Amino acid sequence: MKPSTPGRKQSNVGLAPGTLVHVGEKKAEKTVIKAWLYNSEKLIEKELQTVDECQELKGQPGMNLWINVDGLDQIGIIEKLGGYFGVHPLTLEDVLNTGQRPKMEDYDSYIYAVLKMMLLDEEREEILIDQVSIIFGTNYILSFQEREGDAFNPIRDRLKNSASRLRKNGVDLLAYSLIDAVVDNYFLILEHFGEEIEDLEEQLIVDPMPETLKAIQKYKRDMITLRRSVWPLRELINSLQRTESQLIKESTQIYLRDVYDHTIQVIDSIEAFRDILSSMVDVYLSSLSHRMNDIMKVLTIIATIFIPLTFIAGVYGMNFEYMPELKWRWGYPAVMFAMTILGISMFLYFKKRRWV
Amino acid sequence: MKPSTPGRKQSNVGLAPGTLVHVGEKKAEKTVIKAWLYNSEKLIEKELQTVDECQELKGQPGMNLWINVDGLDQIGIIEKLGGYFGVHPLTLEDVLNTGQRPKMEDYDSYIYAVLKMMLLDEEREEILIDQVSIIFGTNYILSFQEREGDAFNPIRDRLKNSASRLRKNGVDLLAYSLIDAVVDNYFLILEHFGEEIEDLEEQLIVDPMPETLKAIQKYKRDMITLRRSVWPLRELINSLQRTESQLIKESTQIYLRDVYDHTIQVIDSIEAFRDILSSMVDVYLSSLSHRMNDIMKVLTIIATIFIPLTFIAGVYGMNFEYMPELKWRWGYPAVMFAMTILGISMFLYFKKRRWV
Amino acid sequence: MKPSTPGRKQSNVGLAPGTLVHVGEKKAEKTVIKAWLYNSEKLIEKELQTVDECQELKGQPGMNLWINVDGLDQIGIIEKLGGYFGVHPLTLEDVLNTGQRPKMEDYDSYIYAVLKMMLLDEEREEILIDQVSIIFGTNYILSFQEREGDAFNPIRDRLKNSASRLRKNGVDLLAYSLIDAVVDNYFLILEHFGEEIEDLEEQLIVDPMPETLKAIQKYKRDMITLRRSVWPLRELINSLQRTESQLIKESTQIYLRDVYDHTIQVIDSIEAFRDILSSMVDVYLSSLSHRMNDIMKVLTIIATIFIPLTFIAGVYGMNFEYMPELKWRWGYPAVMFAMTILGISMFLYFKKRRWV
Amino acid sequence: MKPSTPGRKQSNVGLAPGTLVHVGEKKAEKTVIKAWLYNSEKLIEKELQTVDECQELKGQPGMNLWINVDGLDQIGIIEKLGGYFGVHPLTLEDVLNTGQRPKMEDYDSYIYAVLKMMLLDEEREEILIDQVSIIFGTNYILSFQEREGDAFNPIRDRLKNSASRLRKNGVDLLAYSLIDAVVDNYFLILEHFGEEIEDLEEQLIVDPMPETLKAIQKYKRDMITLRRSVWPLRELINSLQRTESQLIKESTQIYLRDVYDHTIQVIDSIEAFRDILSSMVDVYLSSLSHRMNDIMKVLTIIATIFIPLTFIAGVYGMNFEYMPELKWRWGYPAVMFAMTILGISMFLYFKKRRWV
Amino acid sequence: MKPSTPGRKQSNVGLAPGTLVHVGEKKAEKTVIKAWLYNSEKLIEKELQTVDECQELKGQPGMNLWINVDGLDQIGIIEKLGGYFGVHPLTLEDVLNTGQRPKMEDYDSYIYAVLKMMLLDEEREEILIDQVSIIFGTNYILSFQEREGDAFNPIRDRLKNSASRLRKNGVDLLAYSLIDAVVDNYFLILEHFGEEIEDLEEQLIVDPMPETLKAIQKYKRDMITLRRSVWPLRELINSLQRTESQLIKESTQIYLRDVYDHTIQVIDSIEAFRDILSSMVDVYLSSLSHRMNDIMKVLTIIATIFIPLTFIAGVYGMNFEYMPELKWRWGYPAVMFAMTILGISMFLYFKKRRWV
Repeated sequence: MKPSTPGRKQSNVGLAPGTLVHVGEKKAEKTVIKAWLYNSEKLIEKELQTVDECQELKGQPGMNLWINVDGLDQIGIIEKLGGYFGVHPLTLEDVLNTGQRPKMEDYDSYIYAVLKMMLLDEEREEILIDQVSIIFGTNYILSFQEREGDAFNPIRDRLKNSASRLRKNGVDLLAYSLIDAVVDNYFLILEHFGEEIEDLEEQLIVDPMPETLKAIQKYKRDMITLRRSVWPLRELINSLQRTESQLIKESTQIYLRDVYDHTIQVIDSIEAFRDILSSMVDVYLSSLSHRMNDIMKVLTIIATIFIPLTFIAGVYGMNFEYMPELKWRWGYPAVMFAMTILGISMFLYFKKRRWV
Repeated sequence: MKPSTPGRKQSNVGLAPGTLVHVGEKKAEKTVIKAWLYNSEKLIEKELQTVDECQELKGQPGMNLWINVDGLDQIGIIEKLGGYFGVHPLTLEDVLNTGQRPKMEDYDSYIYAVLKMMLLDEEREEILIDQVSIIFGTNYILSFQEREGDAFNPIRDRLKNSASRLRKNGVDLLAYSLIDAVVDNYFLILEHFGEEIEDLEEQLIVDPMPETLKAIQKYKRDMITLRRSVWPLRELINSLQRTESQLIKESTQIYLRDVYDHTIQVIDSIEAFRDILSSMVDVYLSSLSHRMNDIMKVLTIIATIFIPLTFIAGVYGMNFEYMPELKWRWGYPAVMFAMTILGISMFLYFKKRRWV
Repeated sequence: MKPSTPGRKQSNVGLAPGTLVHVGEKKAEKTVIKAWLYNSEKLIEKELQTVDECQELKGQPGMNLWINVDGLDQIGIIEKLGGYFGVHPLTLEDVLNTGQRPKMEDYDSYIYAVLKMMLLDEEREEILIDQVSIIFGTNYILSFQEREGDAFNPIRDRLKNSASRLRKNGVDLLAYSLIDAVVDNYFLILEHFGEEIEDLEEQLIVDPMPETLKAIQKYKRDMITLRRSVWPLRELINSLQRTESQLIKESTQIYLRDVYDHTIQVIDSIEAFRDILSSMVDVYLSSLSHRMNDIMKVLTIIATIFIPLTFIAGVYGMNFEYMPELKWRWGYPAVMFAMTILGISMFLYFKKRRWV
Repeated sequence: MKPSTPGRKQSNVGLAPGTLVHVGEKKAEKTVIKAWLYNSEKLIEKELQTVDECQELKGQPGMNLWINVDGLDQIGIIEKLGGYFGVHPLTLEDVLNTGQRPKMEDYDSYIYAVLKMMLLDEEREEILIDQVSIIFGTNYILSFQEREGDAFNPIRDRLKNSASRLRKNGVDLLAYSLIDAVVDNYFLILEHFGEEIEDLEEQLIVDPMPETLKAIQKYKRDMITLRRSVWPLRELINSLQRTESQLIKESTQIYLRDVYDHTIQVIDSIEAFRDILSSMVDVYLSSLSHRMNDIMKVLTIIATIFIPLTFIAGVYGMNFEYMPELKWRWGYPAVMFAMTILGISMFLYFKKRRWV
Repeated sequence: MKPSTPGRKQSNVGLAPGTLVHVGEKKAEKTVIKAWLYNSEKLIEKELQTVDECQELKGQPGMNLWINVDGLDQIGIIEKLGGYFGVHPLTLEDVLNTGQRPKMEDYDSYIYAVLKMMLLDEEREEILIDQVSIIFGTNYILSFQEREGDAFNPIRDRLKNSASRLRKNGVDLLAYSLIDAVVDNYFLILEHFGEEIEDLEEQLIVDPMPETLKAIQKYKRDMITLRRSVWPLRELINSLQRTESQLIKESTQIYLRDVYDHTIQVIDSIEAFRDILSSMVDVYLSSLSHRMNDIMKVLTIIATIFIPLTFIAGVYGMNFEYMPELKWRWGYPAVMFAMTILGISMFLYFKKRRWV
């Protein structure tokens, strides 16, 4: 998970605000547009070949329209689409600029919400971050994503069920559902992190290595990235709850309260993980000190036992002519015995100090 | 005490909100439902065999009804019970999902409060965390717990006493009493922690080991978990105090102020423990440094005394033909004497520097 | 100064709220009740033998009544006293529970304030913490303390002076004076700490020992305890200032502003001490590193000088038959000279690197 | 990037407020004044030779006037200019004092905004910080900079295009554009920092040196400097958004919201960089410990293997007359063999402990 | 700069509030009173011999009166002066107590402001902290200082100039000017600190010593002291700006906004210095580790090279009878050669690991 770089780049610095440029990595080959036209009675699902087909779908009385766009490279398409639904150029600029901070803006005729979707790519053990823009008015909702593949399939399935709440309600409930799906995925990500961090803790106890610290730091940053996505999301939902816009019905408010709670739970878990990771750094550093102590103990024990003994041996290796001990019959065994005693008592001393 | 994992799991990600799934560890074998029907004059206590028996008990004029459910596995029972009392599906979803953050929600016809009950299992030296959900309306109160065994027995005893305030007042006082019982138990947990931390401090002074640090970190996390339960509890009680709901009588407000104070005391103690634990990490790390210093001192003293002596012995072990000292009658004793003097003065030097 | 343990204990967990139990250490042998009945003209001071004597003193028109109770063990007395003045059971529960956090509660007919009095026992170099409860209505004021001996003697002296403001004003000014006396004592405690910390700094520079760190940690905790007493005190006074209660006259407000300022000064000093103590930990840890460096330098110098010399001596101690140097007339002096030069240059090298 | 020193200096301490003195480094040789007089139909661009030419340009009906001043040394010019447009002396004092904190002040007849422009000098790898003051009234806008060369050329180009929004709107949109240009440049600076920090991380892993730490500290300070520029900028824009001044039209508000978002993104990135840099210090310190461990391991292995062997050699170098081993035919090979075995088993022991 | 000790001392603990006692160090020999009576037309400057002379000066219609008192020891004088101008006893108590926290109090008939003046004594490289109390009503202003010598001379000079704003306006502008002069001096102090800290950084790189750390800690504390003076000053000015008192004219408000900005700049710089000093502690600690690594490298290199060589020499110093190498003609040169090779390859190994 790379921290999303700040939104504006050399490419659009200096341009007039509202000039449309796609800022961000190119993630999709082509732009795919799908539409769902639905009410409680019928549902039409359609992949659009050209953006102009929107015009027919748009504004059918009693029908809600959801248009989902995957891929942000073809600026022309997005500009056209924005034009059909009367989207402000600044909104479109934000849609195209994938360095947005999650936020919600109320443009009277529509509400614009941008958030970060995180998907766990289980195969490659990687987390994909996509920016999702949601624009919804009275009976239409536009969603923009950076690439195909998202967290919205369960919603599409529910849409097919004519008895579902989604079909019976307006696009504000659909907008809520999209946000809810994004938040639900954060729980999966957190669970994934939870397991990884548990592994890391195991490793920290068994054999702490520089790699362990690097991994801890990596998760700390991931938490920062995650937090940067979720904190503003909380404000976003809060703004949606308190907006005076007519676009959000009262019955939807109770659901927003629910997803707001989930966001708080996510933030809570992130903070807990951060605390855990921070204390893991402490444990890591202290384990380095412990290891150093262990190394030093070995050195000290060996040196402290043998250096005095070597000295004694050195003494009897001197070549003085008058060294009576050297002539003694039991001199050698006596010295060897003394040295053994000395060595053992040194060892016992260390044993007593619990160094061995 | 394991940090409660965030509430939503793979099992219910993607489901429509309001779909009932039990999220969390299975803690109870079966679901036990008990009911207390009371007013100031009489009290009927009953264990219900089927949830349908509720219907008879419900809505008896002038009587308050408390239904307590232990065990959240049998979703059908809970769904039925919720149905009888007009509980919103989102509330029931929260009741079943044991990863909730304590919160209070006002649904006009009833108030829903969810909190974390902590019980000290003295035998196994373990802290059990159960989620308690309380739903109360005008004359009924439903409580849901993850398993049998709770902190409410004193309340049940007081209920039996027809002179008690509980019997003379509405269910709002009972709801308060349940919350108060939960908060009271936090004090027991804190006392338990206080003693354990004192033991740990003792150990830190006597013989700091990696295990000591691990224990400190464990308690730090426990404090985080505890704080995560109590902080939102404070908001919960605050919301109850400021709610405009008719369900809480004014006479109950004064009691809520009391339990609010207790919550602040708990938070206060948690913060104090956290400060203490943090400074224990400092003490631990500095004690590692001290120990290293001690080890190094021993090594340095031994090496510094004997290495020069060994050198001298080495000099007189050289095989040069013309080394007049070697022929001297008192050469050997003189060298031995010189070496003794050197060793002793080295030792005194270290004594002066307070290394010995 | 031991951090006051949280208020509720096993002894009263589970009891109905409002049940009177003395929670806390027993500090007084018996309960002493003293009364002062005063107005600007006369003053009656009296030690009450039984609590019933209060009834006569109570409610004398134009007279203010101050009843001071030392010792909280005899619950019966306190209950009776509370009864005479219409004190709510929850207030009495708080009076008896010495684990309270300072707070102020407005019960319409009276105001209840609880605070922590700290007295410096100069002989035993100890700080005594007592809980003081103040209850005052229109013309009476009750104060409860854990034991005899308090900070209120100057107030009692002032009461005797019929020209003093205390005598001319209502009990609200007396209540203020009691609070002011408690806050004034915090300054004495802080001064005491200031001196102790200065001593500690001296010691930190001269000879840092594990005991020094332990002392620093002790003072850090004392500061936490102190802060826990003073922070809520600030809120308490703030609440008194902003209360709409008729019990506090406007002329008293200006004095409350004054004691509020003092409280802020106390908090300020506590924070400054905390900062100082924190940086002392840094100094301590760095001094450990310094000392280690010093030890290592000694070892390194000795080893680095003598190990190569010992090697040279070892070379000429080898027993090869063909070692021409050994036969040379000036071999021995030459080697000795070379070794001396080597040793001196090593030493000069260390001198240059400022290790010596 | 040097942290801008606080605004007032010895040179103007003690002067009456409103006395004009240029405080700050002299960055420009001479003062250059350029004017743009424009409406949707025509545009006159002119470099003024004397400040008096302003008077003619000023107040032409239906025309907007932008006067840009580069260089703050010639106080006379700025004083005159301020006089023509009725600028308060305190404002001019702030314009001249380049130690300002970004702020916005509403003087009824005009709005004064001061901000910090940061330009990346790519050649010299340096960041230039200039103070930009913007004063705008109903139809004029004055901008002051410390030197020539700024971030406003794209705006000048857009001004030349008669179809641009700038030409069709009032000076408030031009003021917004200037602020927007300044904020856009922060993104360039951040991108630059992002790359440098990435390089630093690489270096931290490959070969951490004291220089690395110095660089980390340098970037930390740069982040502080940057934050000190951007945080107040956020308030500035916020104030502009909420001002009740008639000078900012409603249509401009939506653009201010946009630049406000960008400012938040900048702050967000700064905080993320700060977190990253902080954890890099941790990594650096732990890498020092690791290296120490590595050094100690080498020393310990060598010493532990050879010190006992040297002792054995020393033993057989003793000159006792009765040492039977010395006479044995296979004594020497046996000892050599024993020493080899001992050395190898020591080595294997270290291998097992993963020290090698 | 010593942190100002908290205001109340043993000397006035227990006294009735409003009792006048001078609390603080005695800094002045005697009390000097000077008066300025001025309006736009004339100015009378006078040193008063007795405080009674005030009465004549006081209340002259159309004239503003500034009385400045240096030295707080003679309580009688201050009490009298306070009496003449109707100053509340609590205000006088605060004037005399030099442990005040900067604050502003509105007593309807006058405004009381207390602040900390810091003067740099360039000779003794010391910072003098004096408490300045300012009391101003409709046409008089009293200022109290602890000793002679202040930052107000430029104001006195401006007063002499009949064309100055000071002469044309009321005492509120004079009060502002006094505060402004105090704040301006903070910039001088900060500049002084800036230079000292730069020197310290230099020293930290060249040769870090325990003294360096001590100096860093000293500056950290100075910053705390400074911050404790400036933070409440900010609130003070803020209160002056928002007061509804008639004593501050609207034309003065704009100047207060200016000095408020300066205060924020001072706070900003203090925070920046604190950040810098904190990171200097990190650099210091890491430099200790570096130095330790350097020491250990030297030890390890020497030991690792010579210990094996000494072992080899030891081997050929053994006295076995059958050691064929000893008899070889080229044994000695061969061993010497082998030892040289071994030593050099060791050295190259360390070179490769960049230890040399």
